[in-house]
Amino acid sequence: MLNLSDKIENYFQIKAIFETQDAMGANFINSCLEQFAKTFKDNFTEKNEIEIIMSILSNYVPECIVKAEVSCEIEKLSDTSIIDPFDFANKFVRAVKIAEVDKYRAVTHNKGIMNGIDSVVIATGNDFRAIESAAHAYASKSGTYKSLTNASVENNIFKFSIEIPLALGTVGGLTKLHPLANLALEILDKPNSKDLMKITAVAGLAQNFAAIKSLITTGIQHGHMKMHLINILNQHRASDIEKEKAIEYFKTNTVSHLEVDLFINKLRSNE
Amino acid sequence: MLNLSDKIENYFQIKAIFETQDAMGANFINSCLEQFAKTFKDNFTEKNEIEIIMSILSNYVPECIVKAEVSCEIEKLSDTSIIDPFDFANKFVRAVKIAEVDKYRAVTHNKGIMNGIDSVVIATGNDFRAIESAAHAYASKSGTYKSLTNASVENNIFKFSIEIPLALGTVGGLTKLHPLANLALEILDKPNSKDLMKITAVAGLAQNFAAIKSLITTGIQHGHMKMHLINILNQHRASDIEKEKAIEYFKTNTVSHLEVDLFINKLRSNE
Repeated sequence: MLNLSDKIENYFQIKAIFETQDAMGANFINSCLEQFAKTFKDNFTEKNEIEIIMSILSNYVPECIVKAEVSCEIEKLSDTSIIDPFDFANKFVRAVKIAEVDKYRAVTHNKGIMNGIDSVVIATGNDFRAIESAAHAYASKSGTYKSLTNASVENNIFKFSIEIPLALGTVGGLTKLHPLANLALEILDKPNSKDLMKITAVAGLAQNFAAIKSLITTGIQHGHMKMHLINILNQHRASDIEKEKAIEYFKTNTVSHLEVDLFINKLRSNE
Repeated sequence: MLNLSDKIENYFQIKAIFETQDAMGANFINSCLEQFAKTFKDNFTEKNEIEIIMSILSNYVPECIVKAEVSCEIEKLSDTSIIDPFDFANKFVRAVKIAEVDKYRAVTHNKGIMNGIDSVVIATGNDFRAIESAAHAYASKSGTYKSLTNASVENNIFKFSIEIPLALGTVGGLTKLHPLANLALEILDKPNSKDLMKITAVAGLAQNFAAIKSLITTGIQHGHMKMHLINILNQHRASDIEKEKAIEYFKTNTVSHLEVDLFINKLRSNE
């Protein structure tokens, strides 16, 4: 029983904690809570002296934190787009630091993380609004909205980690009911909910790594416009041959809606 | 130019504001920002003295707030599930107040709002991760994570409102490219982005009204288990006749996975 009457007059909460195992558990929890309220009221001698406002679960799950971490020697970060891995690692740490001190950056930084997280959440039939709410509320737990990931460089080791609340289920709800959710769980080798939470956190960490890597090397548009080029080509119902020619041409030319329109029109009028 | 060197050593930001009209504008903005960075560096005399970390838009849009409000005389709230509209209105205000003072409640309260918001955002081909991030970061702007809606009772008037950042587009991106997004925009009578933002905010407000109404009257499970019953029946590949019989039976019996299994098995063994 929590006394919150300092915040709202005469307001108390009965707080119950559920271990939901592999289920999301929303229906079970809410049914229990509603029964608790009924039993509580029924057994209260002076029934008119209490009012039940509501009985509902919370999607804020700061006890259900998943941590994922990756680390390596700085030299090993080297690849075709990373010329100097030491510069890269330091710049990476600074980029994450910006998402710690600047809310404008933090929102998009975490939005990117959720691009990765939600993909797994939706594919496995889980509730992405619940995951989003919990994640972003957790990002603001210090009083300032901040990055969900951390990066550091120490003793020649680059370390990158995520800490995020993820209450996911692998049984019940839509997980088995929706054929595609069921297929997604099969592709993931039928994980239990704890394993699914780990997979999901890693998807968020991997997305964030890829995004920051792009941002601090080639720029985000380099990869993004490649994807956008395909979207615009599809809008023109471009054939495979037209797509091939466009991709070749736009390797060295800037993609924009107008430029792609012009390219396709020119291509077609020459045929 | 923002001087953030009190937070990160030697760190400055060039901040640019874009009026994106009816587009989401992400590609355009990012392309511009990357060009700004290039031009800035190229024109800087001592090139080695500055390092560009990154160029990227922000999805945090506290200048892009949509407000929606509904109000009526308290008497008019009366319907079959609302016996005393005055009790209802006062209980409703208390329920929203709980989502202001208790983070555990606020997260699920706002999660529900996003059930409504995301439906429109996804249907119209907009980016729901961007909308989610901005909304929840905005909910934490005071330093405490809080409800996005407000309710009050004054001079016999019940008032309910939402205030949420919503940067949506109706041109570009997937809005026209995806046939279903295009259809959704047609159903909504081809709104411009400002009208779509209004529609979306109202969807969030309506969802929140419906959720709180259920919570403080019949309880959330009453409606939720009706939906869940259909899910379980579909899992059993129930025929229309079986569904009809099940819906009739569970009007007066508690829905659970087990009970529905038993009901269907009994029904089928009698046939």
